[in-house]
Amino acid sequence: MTEQLLLNPARKPTLEGVIRAAEKIANILPPTPLLPLTVDGQTIWCKAECLQPIGAFKIRGGWHRLTDLNDDQRTRGVVAFSSGNHAQGVAWAAKRLGIKAIIVMPEDAPAAKLENTAKLGAEIITYDRMADSRENIAAEIAAKNGAVVVPSFDDPWIVEGQGSAGIEIREQMIAQTGSQPDHLVICCGGGGLSAGISLANPEANITIAEPEGWDDMTRSLKGGSIVPVQDNPPATECDALQTLIVSPLTFDILKARKARGVAVTQGEVHLAMRVAFEQLRLVVEPGGAVALAAILAGKADITEKTVITISGGNVDPKRFAKIIGA
Amino acid sequence: MTEQLLLNPARKPTLEGVIRAAEKIANILPPTPLLPLTVDGQTIWCKAECLQPIGAFKIRGGWHRLTDLNDDQRTRGVVAFSSGNHAQGVAWAAKRLGIKAIIVMPEDAPAAKLENTAKLGAEIITYDRMADSRENIAAEIAAKNGAVVVPSFDDPWIVEGQGSAGIEIREQMIAQTGSQPDHLVICCGGGGLSAGISLANPEANITIAEPEGWDDMTRSLKGGSIVPVQDNPPATECDALQTLIVSPLTFDILKARKARGVAVTQGEVHLAMRVAFEQLRLVVEPGGAVALAAILAGKADITEKTVITISGGNVDPKRFAKIIGA
Repeated sequence: MTEQLLLNPARKPTLEGVIRAAEKIANILPPTPLLPLTVDGQTIWCKAECLQPIGAFKIRGGWHRLTDLNDDQRTRGVVAFSSGNHAQGVAWAAKRLGIKAIIVMPEDAPAAKLENTAKLGAEIITYDRMADSRENIAAEIAAKNGAVVVPSFDDPWIVEGQGSAGIEIREQMIAQTGSQPDHLVICCGGGGLSAGISLANPEANITIAEPEGWDDMTRSLKGGSIVPVQDNPPATECDALQTLIVSPLTFDILKARKARGVAVTQGEVHLAMRVAFEQLRLVVEPGGAVALAAILAGKADITEKTVITISGGNVDPKRFAKIIGA
Repeated sequence: MTEQLLLNPARKPTLEGVIRAAEKIANILPPTPLLPLTVDGQTIWCKAECLQPIGAFKIRGGWHRLTDLNDDQRTRGVVAFSSGNHAQGVAWAAKRLGIKAIIVMPEDAPAAKLENTAKLGAEIITYDRMADSRENIAAEIAAKNGAVVVPSFDDPWIVEGQGSAGIEIREQMIAQTGSQPDHLVICCGGGGLSAGISLANPEANITIAEPEGWDDMTRSLKGGSIVPVQDNPPATECDALQTLIVSPLTFDILKARKARGVAVTQGEVHLAMRVAFEQLRLVVEPGGAVALAAILAGKADITEKTVITISGGNVDPKRFAKIIGA
């Protein structure tokens, strides 16, 4: 089966693939905890992906993709473009597997994210956000070296890999509460995590959360077809969720599941970060706090068994201090 | 056996008791994660007890003690004195078991800790640190109501309960790394956690960490007998570790294990809190960061299999922001 998967890059992500990814990931990473949080007297469950070694769920997709490369592909290496968490996920997997990784990052990416990616042994190529196209740069590198491009969400392995979080959620909910989740509220950029977790939990209702102005998945789901982010989107602190347009690979899964989208404000994100600080003792980055923000703002329902994702915790200390200490 | 334990409050904590506590706690709380951290190219493992529902390991001792009360004792209720984490641990267990809890707290305790204890349904009696004795107040209440006093460390159940963290550490190390810990570095106030974890890991070397000026366990271990904190100890941010004198119950266990003590400075604690923020994405209170501080300062060795405790995360947001954002 693996051979077939490798020969068909246009294949769709499947539940079978998510289960296979979850098995591979369970061999190297213990499950992140599913922490209870009381909101208005009701309990929700928070999947703390900020506790992954790179501080985000992106390690899952990177591992699933890179471990499925054949020997020839491993020799040629991989190339990815990302300003942050996906860069570290691919670099982490590449280092562990002894594969060369080239990461194309904007020259104005947060210093900590550049440093952490370099520390993981990846070669970093910076570009000017305004003048260059990162896709073109990555494609050129891939053509020259024969390297495999690892997209951040528009790829069946990446969706399946992120979906392994959904398998853990399902198993942990059954172990900790006696039954599977009935509602999942998921932080959404390109939709890789949302689509993957949806595949892993075929019976749950799905809500995806985005920052205001960057709520293209929300608007796409409402209209029934993919629309990009509107012109001149507002500045946002949710750097991890600044996707200009989603992909049919992720959108179609969410549409088929009748997923609903909600947009949250900056103030709602800040409140969620403070609640996570005080009640969960977790460091959460703005983009990782949108699902909790949607719950706290009453924009997503608390059902009998609601699970939310806390998807990342890579945030500049000065920015965090300003939000928490205010 | 249970009956015998209940009839003998002067009994010593045992490994058997720690195992029994761990079984009871596993029924209601999933293990907190054991997170890897790279320090100078070596990996240490961090037991994240700040992720417990009350933000500290104290929930363990509270649960083990209260679940071993007989029906008559349950009717009469419990009384504890604590300015923080132990208060919440006892209140949490009491609420879940439907037992009345009275907690004696200093009137200048952090507002958040007073609030959280009250939210858990405990009756709070405040006292003036300078004028009153909390032990006397608690003893009076106990005498009047027949309530059972639940000390914060000088109690076999409390030591065994905290030791359940050590059982989890042992099991997680074997699952995640293939072998048990050979060195445990533990945050120490009265020594309940340190003694309990030591019982659970009979073959490991033990280092306990304390704040400078409050390093009475360190000096006691060095001299071979219990000495109190020296007169006029310095102000410390490690409010959870301000124990004036330890108890034979905890000291004797650590002495028999040839435990070593180290004291860390405020600057070393701040650095540890920043490292935990950036690399573990955990909110750690000063007293919960002393073991990591000892490692980072080179005061405790990194061996093949070193585990440290991150024992609590209940810290005022403004104080945390100041330390992290500096």
